[in-house]
Amino acid sequence: MTTRPHIVIIGGGFGGLSAAKALKRTNADVTVIDRTNHHLFQPLLYQVATASLSSSDVSAPIRHILHRQKNTEVILGEVRGIDVERRVVSLEDGHEFHYDYLIVAPGSRHAYFGHGEWEPLAPGLKALEDASEIRRRFLLAFELAETETDAAKRDADLTFVIVGGGPTGVELAGAISTMAKKGLYRDFRHIDTRLSKVILVEGGPRILPSFPEDLAASARRSLEDLGVIVRTSSIVTDINQGEVCVGDERISANTVFWAAGNEASPLGAMLGAPLDRSGKVVVNPDLSVPGHPEVFVVGDLALVNRKDGRPVPGVSPAAIQEGRAAAMNIRRLIWRQETKPFTYFNKGDLAVIGRSRAIADFGKVRFSGRIAWLLWLFVHIMYLVGFRNRISVFIQWAYSYITYQGGARVITRAEWQK
Amino acid sequence: MTTRPHIVIIGGGFGGLSAAKALKRTNADVTVIDRTNHHLFQPLLYQVATASLSSSDVSAPIRHILHRQKNTEVILGEVRGIDVERRVVSLEDGHEFHYDYLIVAPGSRHAYFGHGEWEPLAPGLKALEDASEIRRRFLLAFELAETETDAAKRDADLTFVIVGGGPTGVELAGAISTMAKKGLYRDFRHIDTRLSKVILVEGGPRILPSFPEDLAASARRSLEDLGVIVRTSSIVTDINQGEVCVGDERISANTVFWAAGNEASPLGAMLGAPLDRSGKVVVNPDLSVPGHPEVFVVGDLALVNRKDGRPVPGVSPAAIQEGRAAAMNIRRLIWRQETKPFTYFNKGDLAVIGRSRAIADFGKVRFSGRIAWLLWLFVHIMYLVGFRNRISVFIQWAYSYITYQGGARVITRAEWQK
Repeated sequence: MTTRPHIVIIGGGFGGLSAAKALKRTNADVTVIDRTNHHLFQPLLYQVATASLSSSDVSAPIRHILHRQKNTEVILGEVRGIDVERRVVSLEDGHEFHYDYLIVAPGSRHAYFGHGEWEPLAPGLKALEDASEIRRRFLLAFELAETETDAAKRDADLTFVIVGGGPTGVELAGAISTMAKKGLYRDFRHIDTRLSKVILVEGGPRILPSFPEDLAASARRSLEDLGVIVRTSSIVTDINQGEVCVGDERISANTVFWAAGNEASPLGAMLGAPLDRSGKVVVNPDLSVPGHPEVFVVGDLALVNRKDGRPVPGVSPAAIQEGRAAAMNIRRLIWRQETKPFTYFNKGDLAVIGRSRAIADFGKVRFSGRIAWLLWLFVHIMYLVGFRNRISVFIQWAYSYITYQGGARVITRAEWQK
Repeated sequence: MTTRPHIVIIGGGFGGLSAAKALKRTNADVTVIDRTNHHLFQPLLYQVATASLSSSDVSAPIRHILHRQKNTEVILGEVRGIDVERRVVSLEDGHEFHYDYLIVAPGSRHAYFGHGEWEPLAPGLKALEDASEIRRRFLLAFELAETETDAAKRDADLTFVIVGGGPTGVELAGAISTMAKKGLYRDFRHIDTRLSKVILVEGGPRILPSFPEDLAASARRSLEDLGVIVRTSSIVTDINQGEVCVGDERISANTVFWAAGNEASPLGAMLGAPLDRSGKVVVNPDLSVPGHPEVFVVGDLALVNRKDGRPVPGVSPAAIQEGRAAAMNIRRLIWRQETKPFTYFNKGDLAVIGRSRAIADFGKVRFSGRIAWLLWLFVHIMYLVGFRNRISVFIQWAYSYITYQGGARVITRAEWQK
């Protein structure tokens, strides 16, 4: 009789969860460790930030998702260290987990490129609490403007700057502008929310650099139709309370959101493996760590190349595919077979710009507009975890579509008095 | 030409909101001030606390509820002072509002009867942030138990004490017990959540003292069927970290919730009017403050008697009726008519005990069980503010009923590391 191997998975995001699911029928004990109790459907997080969805619509308890999987336990805990020699993962609360195989899937945080002091002034969007913070600032801006008597200060209250023209920045800018210009204006007596300025600042020559040029140009036109001011080739040089500096220009704005970049998890540095400039772990083609065939890295923390030499992008479908591939390679190791290299299958890219508008890129086939938007809706509802979430999101979207109102526009007392 | 009178309403709860709505067609300017941006449907707040509903399901932005009412503005602000001589309400942020008529409807907070030090150990349930805090502790208790190796500590993690056998305590105890015993147990590997102890402690001789004795007895049996341990004539003498003292007995429990009493808002003391022992304002029969016919108090802060001499209870229908009555009396004053005394119309009382069980008291007609529960469902959906909330709550309830799962079981990282 052999002992059952123990597989530890750090992270219950797209990568970790798909790995855990792929290990369902493996003769092994699986432990999933996450520092929240929920899996988060990040592609819809911007809708929580803009008060269209509730936190619970885009998340589900990890232990509930995996509750039928009898070989798997779920631990709420923050990883403090990984000792690849002793094969031990230790948590902040002192618990230690010995592993025979390890999958590291911690995801990433937003990066401020050496300007950590900007974070409190320009929060980013990764976790549910980030979304709550952005929602708080977004809703509070209008409340402050409503009672502000100084015209210049009121204009700053009604100016929103989003830094970063990738999909998250585009989604945030589109949603904020739509709500300000179409949804909220009837609710206020002393301000016209339709006069709000929403400015999307991108350092590169165009927004959505991961999309083909014609689709990105179409997205830019759609954003401008929604009233967003798009500024490309514009570098943010400083952020202060109430002001953003773009090049030499100062923009008065009380609300700034950050969507300009990601930074790898510090767990990567604990694996004794080579890291790239941004802190990602340069993994073997089978996703294992050089020198440690029993340790795999998947998702945003892994740097792995496609067949054509370009890196696999940091998107959810890639994390899901990598998680499954790492799990299958662990099964092969358990059966004393050779591991297989990971191959990325690009299913296509979608980005939503606002009400009724999106862009879709399937390589040879590309399109934009309402059809892309309907496809975006369908794909996101389909991939949402949990039947309850799907129904709830569908209802909220139908409501928002008809009324232009976000359904989750709540500020608690503790929140606005922060 | 006369100037339009200015009516200030403090509080956007049941009392303040119904007053504002009743002033819709009055030739006056109305200002509603609240320290949150939302109206809260408090009768369902315990379902947010027990992870069945989301915050946004039981709340709606006050300014959105009133957005069609052109004579009304809504201000997010915390009242610092009321000067009844100068007729000025001042806010913490320095804003001042002069009024011709004032309606004070601030609601109440839970009271610890001189034991303010118990509040951090045994949070109560009044605002959305209270519900988040209770949910956090409720969900975290099982997470801690799952990794606890000491049997006694694990038992304390799985023991929940609810202090106070009124409707809120009964609802909390029923919901927590149902979820622990029917819903969550499949999600854990190392604990059996069905072995959780839920103890409802009431100082008086029976639970639900505002209900007739036979209905309260029926409710008690229902609670016990759900696995709740009901302890009446039991006085909580002390609360410490991890322990509740009931009389001389010490109960090891890591999670304690407080539903034992209310305390009037401190705004009552600013009106220069007589207060009762609990701090309520003893108002005239027309709800105005003695000596200040232009100032009205409604809801939990007002002490007013029924025709039979008993006080009007502190329930939402009473606050709604009082708000409307105060508004009508202000209209009469504007038209130089005499005000009318308030008469309370008791529509009947409902309390829910758990899945499929409730009690209903309509004076001559009383019943309990499934019919009362269906009535409770219907009434609460009907009175919920906002079409979106009604649909959303209906869906969540259908989901919870079928699956025994709460749909909003999310703990963020910041929450559990508190």
